Amino acid sequence: MAALPVSPLAPKSFPELPAIEGVRFATAAAGIKYQNRTDVLLMAFDPGTVAAGVLTRSQCPSAAVDWCRAVLPGGTARGLVVNSGNANAFTGVKGRQSVQMTAEIAARALGCASDDILLASTGVIGEPLDATKFAGVLEETAGRLGTTPWIEPARAIMTTDTYPKLSGAVLEIDGVEVRINGIAKGSGMIAPDMATMLSFVVTDMPVTAAVLQALLVRHVKTSFNAITVDSDTSTSDTLLAFATGKAGVEPLASLEDPRAEIFGAALADVLFDLAIQVVRDGEGASKMVSVHVEGATSDASAFRIAKAIADSPLVKTAIAGEDANWGRVVMAVGKAGEPADRDRLAIRFGDIVVARNGERAAGYDEAAASAYMQGDELELTVELGLGAGRASVYTCDLTHGYIAINGDYRS
Amino acid sequence: MAALPVSPLAPKSFPELPAIEGVRFATAAAGIKYQNRTDVLLMAFDPGTVAAGVLTRSQCPSAAVDWCRAVLPGGTARGLVVNSGNANAFTGVKGRQSVQMTAEIAARALGCASDDILLASTGVIGEPLDATKFAGVLEETAGRLGTTPWIEPARAIMTTDTYPKLSGAVLEIDGVEVRINGIAKGSGMIAPDMATMLSFVVTDMPVTAAVLQALLVRHVKTSFNAITVDSDTSTSDTLLAFATGKAGVEPLASLEDPRAEIFGAALADVLFDLAIQVVRDGEGASKMVSVHVEGATSDASAFRIAKAIADSPLVKTAIAGEDANWGRVVMAVGKAGEPADRDRLAIRFGDIVVARNGERAAGYDEAAASAYMQGDELELTVELGLGAGRASVYTCDLTHGYIAINGDYRS
Repeated sequence: MAALPVSPLAPKSFPELPAIEGVRFATAAAGIKYQNRTDVLLMAFDPGTVAAGVLTRSQCPSAAVDWCRAVLPGGTARGLVVNSGNANAFTGVKGRQSVQMTAEIAARALGCASDDILLASTGVIGEPLDATKFAGVLEETAGRLGTTPWIEPARAIMTTDTYPKLSGAVLEIDGVEVRINGIAKGSGMIAPDMATMLSFVVTDMPVTAAVLQALLVRHVKTSFNAITVDSDTSTSDTLLAFATGKAGVEPLASLEDPRAEIFGAALADVLFDLAIQVVRDGEGASKMVSVHVEGATSDASAFRIAKAIADSPLVKTAIAGEDANWGRVVMAVGKAGEPADRDRLAIRFGDIVVARNGERAAGYDEAAASAYMQGDELELTVELGLGAGRASVYTCDLTHGYIAINGDYRS
Repeated sequence: MAALPVSPLAPKSFPELPAIEGVRFATAAAGIKYQNRTDVLLMAFDPGTVAAGVLTRSQCPSAAVDWCRAVLPGGTARGLVVNSGNANAFTGVKGRQSVQMTAEIAARALGCASDDILLASTGVIGEPLDATKFAGVLEETAGRLGTTPWIEPARAIMTTDTYPKLSGAVLEIDGVEVRINGIAKGSGMIAPDMATMLSFVVTDMPVTAAVLQALLVRHVKTSFNAITVDSDTSTSDTLLAFATGKAGVEPLASLEDPRAEIFGAALADVLFDLAIQVVRDGEGASKMVSVHVEGATSDASAFRIAKAIADSPLVKTAIAGEDANWGRVVMAVGKAGEPADRDRLAIRFGDIVVARNGERAAGYDEAAASAYMQGDELELTVELGLGAGRASVYTCDLTHGYIAINGDYRS
């Protein structure tokens, strides 16, 4: 397919993330599917690096996801191989052989055990991935590992993404500078559980695998698991975090350690920033929409209602058409199957109250609402008036661009 | 908005349904929203007519749905008023007053009690519906009730439908001819629970309200509850059945009566035919897709998997693009959250086996699959290999037409 136009919601510039001691990387163009661009990422971690991860809940996961699920409990990592263009999903025995061989090739190139290699693949489903292609490539790539620029790995893992996604945080812990760098890819087949795509986060914070895993699980809820582009969950969703431990502070070994909050908050910021970047690059997106539900009977109930709104094709097409069609929001609340009292419902677009107590708000100004809808960042708030439960879900609109991209992706 | 082009999947002709003794009707153009077309339907039933119904499970139902839920337990009906152009949903106290007033006007016009009037509305949500508009209209309409042609009521209840939907069955019970006529409307905001829209079925079979209700609930499962256009459930979904009892046979008063099977099968045929007509008129539809899931651990599990496939934007856009992208079917099976063993999965497009045992089928012929995808009626079958559970869900593709219709519906 022809190159996609860059999302109108793309960032104006990309951050220059600093080097992180203990991790080096390089990318290569292996021609797996795409021409004239990089499609393989090799990351190498120093001995002592710990790893944690959250993987898709799909019942039909890719071979690479199976591999990560098998080796992650070890809690350590020396290398990461990511390819774009072929998901190596639904490839049966060939898929299992392919990941085994890829891990062995990478382990040889990096001088480590194959179960210290993590793998991720993204692209078309059902095409066998020929791992022999990686043999020369990974060896050559391992010979030119570097520490910057981080935009290169972000570029190598893209599929229908129209821009690379990277985010970082620099914080101070015990008077020492600690760094967290992250990259992500994702544009379609994006929905919670877990909410997409590939993302890799590296920090020099010394932290045990158990604590890193716990913080990742905690903060994925309000970041990657709170976004949806099209309600479709990928077979390949993979979020991995690596901690090289090179920052000169005492290891973080317990969630009770007060530094867990500080480090966790910075990690959460990076995950949230990356997740929002994925939504802003949603296939065909012209508007970014934050859906807030308040006053639900529980946070979980609020989340399901927010998700029903964010996934509704009728809500999303109305937003694409800049139509303040709050009736469709009522519909989506109604279909969520969660406690809701129609006659207490209030709905706001931005600060404009469009509905209150189960009917159109007195003095509702359609012109003002229509003007608000012309913005490219919209806030949609539903107040249920039942309890204290609240949640936010982030999505984009549904446009002709989504149809064009997905009606013509594989061919 | 401009008139929509008629669906390419529209029927070539419409059946001429026979008169049914005990029911008369007329339509009117009240100008509620549309110009130059009918938008009000009044049906009058002879005394002794029983009624049954299945209503939306939306937590935010329309005022008319609330009304039907309140009066249906009475089990009798003398009149039905339907309007298109305004759903009278999320209209608060005004909505309740409006249905009360409409029922009273209709009851006066037909000479019956207001709780023998059933009501349904379809159209935009959140706009108060001015019932005083019905006053003169219903009185005038009641003065010219007739028994044919049935296409007129089918036309009066349309919104974004591109063709009227009607279906009928004539069967013999105890040597006597029994008739069932049905009409439906629906095109978008169509999804199970229950799957749409408005539908009204009339029969001359003498049957108790309890048996009619039981048969309706049984057969809605495989008809209106087995279709989806866009996964969005309406606030106004209403299926009502009326039995005038004029056919000269013994009343059907028990599900144990062997005639219940015969009558039920004919009723099921009418409901299924109407439901399929709704899918074939799905907003923007260019292809009709039957999704069959076999070998699941239960029928309910098979249904949820079939629904996940039929609701997937990525599956639906691939079909629109005539792309035999079975990888997206694997994705949808995986996201359904139901038992599935990736490595036993088989997928067929029509008779073409594209995947077997968790990978692309040996000898898979992409050209043959692509040729199949060019048809406008597609069968997609997933065999899970786990048990005997099976279900079918019917849907259409997701095209630019859907975006155009819904990004520009209210304005």
